Amino acid sequence: MKSFRKELFFNTTKRMEFINITSHVEKALEESGIQEGLCLVNAMHITASVFINDDEHGLLSDYAKWLEELAPHEPLSRYRHNLTGEDNGDAHHKRQIMGREVVVAVTGSRLDFGTWEQIFYGEFDGRRRKRVLVKIIGE
Amino acid sequence: MKSFRKELFFNTTKRMEFINITSHVEKALEESGIQEGLCLVNAMHITASVFINDDEHGLLSDYAKWLEELAPHEPLSRYRHNLTGEDNGDAHHKRQIMGREVVVAVTGSRLDFGTWEQIFYGEFDGRRRKRVLVKIIGE
Amino acid sequence: MKSFRKELFFNTTKRMEFINITSHVEKALEESGIQEGLCLVNAMHITASVFINDDEHGLLSDYAKWLEELAPHEPLSRYRHNLTGEDNGDAHHKRQIMGREVVVAVTGSRLDFGTWEQIFYGEFDGRRRKRVLVKIIGE
Repeated sequence: MKSFRKELFFNTTKRMEFINITSHVEKALEESGIQEGLCLVNAMHITASVFINDDEHGLLSDYAKWLEELAPHEPLSRYRHNLTGEDNGDAHHKRQIMGREVVVAVTGSRLDFGTWEQIFYGEFDGRRRKRVLVKIIGE
Repeated sequence: MKSFRKELFFNTTKRMEFINITSHVEKALEESGIQEGLCLVNAMHITASVFINDDEHGLLSDYAKWLEELAPHEPLSRYRHNLTGEDNGDAHHKRQIMGREVVVAVTGSRLDFGTWEQIFYGEFDGRRRKRVLVKIIGE
Repeated sequence: MKSFRKELFFNTTKRMEFINITSHVEKALEESGIQEGLCLVNAMHITASVFINDDEHGLLSDYAKWLEELAPHEPLSRYRHNLTGEDNGDAHHKRQIMGREVVVAVTGSRLDFGTWEQIFYGEFDGRRRKRVLVKIIGE
């Protein structure tokens, strides 16, 4: 069994932001030399998500609006977590809706995807440098 | 290390529909010959989910009602995604609540489940032929 | 390839409760002797979650309040599932928001975590003995 690990880094400029990271994960898979196995991609932050969906501009803005309805940023007093001095209580909730991680099959040295599947990093407390972990096992 | 891949196909007849696919995944596991490992089951579509819960008719209708409250199908104008000509903006949201995939332990050639765990395909933009991927690695 | 399996048991005293199980998973990893691989941690119950987030008291109480808003326990008649004689319809919904499982990378014999990642068992129909499965594969 082979294993491969890589950290990806992203500089986010807005509080909430979605970044298509598929090509970065594909590059990691190529570097790994793994042909058959499983590829884990997870946010290393607890106010961020990794998820798979469609790379369509309107949909991503729909997600932003919907997540803001389900877990509004303001009023800050809505979240006891913000009593710690943080202002990211909402981000911890948004991340639970969108998920921490994806696991993708690796088949014939490629991400084994349906037609429209793309991997996104979802940032909910951005404006700093953030990390995503790629771990691939197989052979 | 062994790996095994199989696509499952389902013809859905309604827009929203839940199909218990546990026996199909068990059959794939049997075909794989894998005794110890991990089994990934994921929707290959971005308006569908694979999830694990109880096979109880009332619960599945509760899910349908609740998902419709959290991400209503109409008005179609609610979703910028629908400006592309699609009418499935809601389905992309429902899928995020229910999840894309499950990872199940394989122990002693069987899905290593609690008493009531059953695997479902959740369709949110149905009435066509859909695919689910099963990928098993182990030995 | 090595594989390792362990069940963790928890006695929950409240209907809704969050238990930090990170040290239990770390102990299982140590017992496994696995240095590189993937570690699956999943609830074996369908009214419970395993998820990763921050071990901050205020945040956990925020989650409890938010989940109660998204899927209220009462009125019991809200859920057709409760017609079976159960009163846990809400718990099946809360679990879908928070997720069934996490998959964690194992690197250098350790859980490969970002700074604040902690693993929680989230109970939504508690006051009895509950099980969590840890399955690790790798070498």
